[in-house]
Amino acid sequence: MTMPAVILVRTQLAQNMGATARAMLNFGLTDLRLVAPEVSHLSQDARSLAAGADSVLENAKVFQTTQEAVADLHRVYATTVRHRDMISLQFTPRQAARHAFDHQAQGHQVGILFGPEKAGLVNDDVALADAIITVPVNSDFSSLNLAQAVLLVAYEWSQASLAEGSTQGVLLTGEMPLATKEDLHGFLGQLEEALDRSGYFRAAHKKPKMLRTLHATFSRIPMTFQEIRTLRGVISDLVNPEGIYSTRVPKKDRGE
Amino acid sequence: MTMPAVILVRTQLAQNMGATARAMLNFGLTDLRLVAPEVSHLSQDARSLAAGADSVLENAKVFQTTQEAVADLHRVYATTVRHRDMISLQFTPRQAARHAFDHQAQGHQVGILFGPEKAGLVNDDVALADAIITVPVNSDFSSLNLAQAVLLVAYEWSQASLAEGSTQGVLLTGEMPLATKEDLHGFLGQLEEALDRSGYFRAAHKKPKMLRTLHATFSRIPMTFQEIRTLRGVISDLVNPEGIYSTRVPKKDRGE
Repeated sequence: MTMPAVILVRTQLAQNMGATARAMLNFGLTDLRLVAPEVSHLSQDARSLAAGADSVLENAKVFQTTQEAVADLHRVYATTVRHRDMISLQFTPRQAARHAFDHQAQGHQVGILFGPEKAGLVNDDVALADAIITVPVNSDFSSLNLAQAVLLVAYEWSQASLAEGSTQGVLLTGEMPLATKEDLHGFLGQLEEALDRSGYFRAAHKKPKMLRTLHATFSRIPMTFQEIRTLRGVISDLVNPEGIYSTRVPKKDRGE
Repeated sequence: MTMPAVILVRTQLAQNMGATARAMLNFGLTDLRLVAPEVSHLSQDARSLAAGADSVLENAKVFQTTQEAVADLHRVYATTVRHRDMISLQFTPRQAARHAFDHQAQGHQVGILFGPEKAGLVNDDVALADAIITVPVNSDFSSLNLAQAVLLVAYEWSQASLAEGSTQGVLLTGEMPLATKEDLHGFLGQLEEALDRSGYFRAAHKKPKMLRTLHATFSRIPMTFQEIRTLRGVISDLVNPEGIYSTRVPKKDRGE
């Protein structure tokens, strides 16, 4: 079974990267991704805290944006301690690990986002996730170290894969592959363009928040590639009822 | 319900003390005990990693021996990754937390031993425990950071106290209080003295191992104070069948 990717977003301390690598490998995780890191994951500070898990650091992939980092994944979880005004599914680490179990058993790629030390993930990052993970900490002292958060999530994942599996339902998709985030973002890009043309974003300063809401909503729905294609067709038809221009689904998205 | 004491034995790095304090407070634990620490828990290195959990460091109690540190406890768990040739009950952190739950619900004091960074707990420390806790880590990379181990154990404890309680049986002791470790060690001291006189430890160099085995065996048995007193009487009678000298149970141990 595939294990989840750990995605550190705008991490500020190399020590936390090293400690994260160590915690990951303690529980068999190796897919480390770094989004716009503020320090080097190959520095001495990072290696020192990795305490032998250097291979995880050396094989880490670096991305400029969170969206690129999750492009090949099917399900994404965002860790956050703050209550947000966005509608979202919220899990504990244990619930999330069980929830993801059946997806992973079907070969789906899963990833977990961890925000920067001081401020945590921004809403735009969270909107890319299917669900939120909140560690149930002491409400009077909730500041959990980044690598400690990674450890708990990795630990719960390893525990879930030892257990008999989750008690939750499975999305039965028959022979249809689940859409990747790249598929989803392709659709959302098309939707944004269509809404731009239609004048949907009347107040320009409100556009980011409106877009984020759309991202968050669609990210919560597990969809097959076929369903994404259907949605793309729907948008095309809505903006172009007379069939003046073609849908232009990229070749890749047609599975060719 | 009482929460467990975290007992760091011969810790070598102040940073790990600080990170331990933070991890403890994240999950509502505050009773930190230090046995023969090699560094100061009030140093800047410790405080820096505590990240606001300074109160846990400031209230930490320092002991010279592990035995003193566990004297007032009723149940003790020892964390260890190595397989040992001692007979012992072994739990995962989750199992241990559930196992201890009913004890804590009855007001019993529980503690968890964590060994030094490099070598872990020595057998003499482990022999003071009722049971062993082993974190189920990747067998190819099992070196878990000390504070990470504390975090996982503290986390599981907080999770267990949120759950409905354990599915395990409870030791029904009626109105009898469970013996503390001090009660147990008092008995074991008496036993050692008696065995010394009887010539039981024929090969002096084997005595530590033989004693450790006795400690380990009796530590695994949850006993009431009354049972300990009975055992003390048994030893007295065995070494002194004619009643030549009195049992000399300390006043305190008679509950007076």
